[in-house]
Amino acid sequence: MGIADESLSAHAAWRGKMDTTPKMVIRTRHDLAVAYTPGVAEPCKAIAEQPEAVYDYTMKGNTVAVVTDGSAVLGLGNIGPAAALPVMEGKCALFKTFGDVNAFPICLDTQDTDEIVDACIKLAPVFGGINLEDISAPRCFEIEERLNEALDIPVFHDDQHGTAIVVLSALINSLKLVGKRVQDVRVVMSGAGAAGIAIAKLLLSYGFRDIIMCGSRGIISSSLEGINDAQRAMLEVTNLDDMSGTLADALVGADIFVGVSAPGVVTRAMVETMADDPIVFAMANPVPEIYPEDALAAGAAVAGTGRSDFPNQVNNVIAFPGIFLGALEARAERITEPMKLAAAEALAALVSDEELAPDFVMPDPFDPRVARAVADAVCACVKAA
Amino acid sequence: MGIADESLSAHAAWRGKMDTTPKMVIRTRHDLAVAYTPGVAEPCKAIAEQPEAVYDYTMKGNTVAVVTDGSAVLGLGNIGPAAALPVMEGKCALFKTFGDVNAFPICLDTQDTDEIVDACIKLAPVFGGINLEDISAPRCFEIEERLNEALDIPVFHDDQHGTAIVVLSALINSLKLVGKRVQDVRVVMSGAGAAGIAIAKLLLSYGFRDIIMCGSRGIISSSLEGINDAQRAMLEVTNLDDMSGTLADALVGADIFVGVSAPGVVTRAMVETMADDPIVFAMANPVPEIYPEDALAAGAAVAGTGRSDFPNQVNNVIAFPGIFLGALEARAERITEPMKLAAAEALAALVSDEELAPDFVMPDPFDPRVARAVADAVCACVKAA
Repeated sequence: MGIADESLSAHAAWRGKMDTTPKMVIRTRHDLAVAYTPGVAEPCKAIAEQPEAVYDYTMKGNTVAVVTDGSAVLGLGNIGPAAALPVMEGKCALFKTFGDVNAFPICLDTQDTDEIVDACIKLAPVFGGINLEDISAPRCFEIEERLNEALDIPVFHDDQHGTAIVVLSALINSLKLVGKRVQDVRVVMSGAGAAGIAIAKLLLSYGFRDIIMCGSRGIISSSLEGINDAQRAMLEVTNLDDMSGTLADALVGADIFVGVSAPGVVTRAMVETMADDPIVFAMANPVPEIYPEDALAAGAAVAGTGRSDFPNQVNNVIAFPGIFLGALEARAERITEPMKLAAAEALAALVSDEELAPDFVMPDPFDPRVARAVADAVCACVKAA
Repeated sequence: MGIADESLSAHAAWRGKMDTTPKMVIRTRHDLAVAYTPGVAEPCKAIAEQPEAVYDYTMKGNTVAVVTDGSAVLGLGNIGPAAALPVMEGKCALFKTFGDVNAFPICLDTQDTDEIVDACIKLAPVFGGINLEDISAPRCFEIEERLNEALDIPVFHDDQHGTAIVVLSALINSLKLVGKRVQDVRVVMSGAGAAGIAIAKLLLSYGFRDIIMCGSRGIISSSLEGINDAQRAMLEVTNLDDMSGTLADALVGADIFVGVSAPGVVTRAMVETMADDPIVFAMANPVPEIYPEDALAAGAAVAGTGRSDFPNQVNNVIAFPGIFLGALEARAERITEPMKLAAAEALAALVSDEELAPDFVMPDPFDPRVARAVADAVCACVKAA
C-alpha cells in the first residue's frame, strides 16, 4: 500500500486528527465547582478587571489558531476551507508534537481579504498567536500585514516565513561547507510568489547581496511584462543590474539555486553552468525543479528538496513550532525579522562541525533539541529588544 | 480556602483548561508522511470531490464550537469575550468529560448581532455544531434563528434550551411524585428573559396548558408596559386570562413555581398561598428566589435550585453533552422541539420509581448513563423524522 492509500485509510480511522482534552479530571461536584460554576467566576472577574490576566488564567498564552481559506492548499490549489481541514489538523498535530503548543484549525468560509482579516480580529481573544496557512498570494501579504497592525498577538504566514527561515539555515551551513561568504555569492531563485519573495527578503536581511528572482516567464526585471506589485517592489533590492532573460541565463555563474516553483525546470546542463561547488535547493513538491541525483551528477556540492525521502529536506516543521513556542513564552506581539534570523542561526548551529556534510546541513525534524533551540533564540530577541 | 480562592489558584496552575491533542503519535518520517505531507493530500482531494466526506476524514463530525460574545456571562453580566473565556473553556471541558464530544471556545470580539452571525458562518467548516453560550437576550434569539437558517449544522443556545430540557425533566418527575397531571397544573414563572421564555415554550410543547410568566415588574400581561417583542409573543400562548398583578398574586393557587430571575423574590408566605403539594424550582444563582429549606417549610413537596450544594440541582450538564453527542452521531441539521422533549423524557426516565423522591427527581450529573441516554433519545428522533 502506498502512502496515499495508507493516509486515506488512517484518516478514515482517525475521523479527525485532533482531540480537545481537559487538563483536569472532573469526577465530583467539588471538581465541577472549581473548574466550572460557581468557582469559575473568579478568573472571569480577574480578567474583567485586568485584561492581561487572560494570560494567567486561560489557554490563550499557549494556543495558536491555524487559519486558512483553502485557497492555496499544498500543490492542490484552491480546494476551499473544508477540503483544507485535513492539512490544518495535521499542522495542529505538528504544533503539539514538536512544540508542545496547543493549536486549533480555523477554516474560513470566505476568500475575501477584508472578511478574512475581520474574522481573525473577531476570533483573536482566545488565541496567543495566529499561523496563516495555505492562503494564496498576493492576498496573504495584505492579510498578514493588516492583522499584525490590528492585533497585539503575533501573526505569521508560515508558507512565507517558515520556509524562508529553514532555507536560510540550510544556506548558512551549505556555505560553510563550500567555504564561500554570504556577501560574495549570487543566489538565483525560481519562484516569485509568496514563499520566493519571503525567502529573498530574509536572505537580504541576513547579508546576502546578489539575488536574482525568476518567475515562470524568466528573470524578474524592469522589462518583464505582467509582474505584480510585490515582484516590482523586489526589484529595488534584487537583480540590481536589471538583467533580463531566462532562468538558464540567470544560472550561469550563480553559486546558489533556490527553487519554490515547478517540476523539472532546472536541467543538469544548467547546473553545469553554475559557479564551482554550486548549492541547489529544489523544493517544488512532490517533483522538484531538479532531482538531487541529477544536481549532484552535474557538480552540485549540496542538494536539497522539500521531500522527506531525500537528504536535506527543507521542512518547516523544524521552524514554526519553536517560533511560536518562543513568541508565546516571551509574549511577543510580532514575529520580527531579527527573530527569524536568530531562529535560522539557531537551526544551523544545531548541526555540529563534525556532523555537517553535503547530505546533512539542517537538523533532523525529530531531533528533540530543535523547538527549544528555536524558541530560546526567539525569546532572546524579545529580551534584547 | 473557599471555592472562589481554590478556583482562582487552580486556574493559575492550569493556565488554560483545554489542551489540543493529536490522536496519533508522530515519531518517524513515515508517521509524518501519513498524517501530514504528502499523504494528507488524499483526504483533501476526497473532500474537494465529495463535500460530505469531511465527516469521514476530519474532526468536524465530533467537534462543537462553544461561542460567546461575553455579553451575559454567569451572573457577572457583560464582561466581554476575553473575561468569558474561563467559562467557555469550562464548558468545553464538560463537553468532553460528560459527552466525549470535542469542543473549542470561540470568544468573539464583537457584540453586534450581524457580526456574530457572520463570524459563525465563516467558522462553520470546522465544526459539526455550534453551542451558543452567555449571549444576552434578545440578541440570542435572532442569532440562533439566523444561524440555524444559514447553516446545515445544529446551532443550540444552551442557556435557553439546555435549561428548558432539564427543568422539564425535573417537572415530569415532580408531577409523578405529587400525582398531578401536566394538563391540569398552573405554572408560574419568575424571569421572562431568554431562559424563561425557552422553558415556557418547551413546557407548552410537552402539554402544559396554564403558564403565567412574571418579569421584574410583575405578571406579563397585555396591560404591562415596556414588554419586549419576545414577551409579547408569549402572551399568545401564556396567561390566557390576561391576569395582571404581582408575582405574589400569580402564585396564589399555583402548582409549580419556576424561577430564573433574582435572589429572594419568593417568600415563605407566598409559597403558603400555592396549591397543595407545590413544586418549587428556584434557580437564580448563586442566591435562589427562595432557599429550599424555606420552600419545604412552607409546604413545598419538591424544591430545587441551580446550586450543586442542595438536592435537585437543575444542571445543564445532564443535557447538553448528550444532546450534541446524539445530534452529531445522527448528523442532525437542527436540534428540534421533538429532540428536546425526547431528551427531557429520557432524563426523567433515568430516575427509577424506587429512586424517585422529593430530594431526587433528576439523574446525578455523574451517572454514567446520562449522556448516552440523551444521545439515544435524540438519535431516535432523527430516525423517526
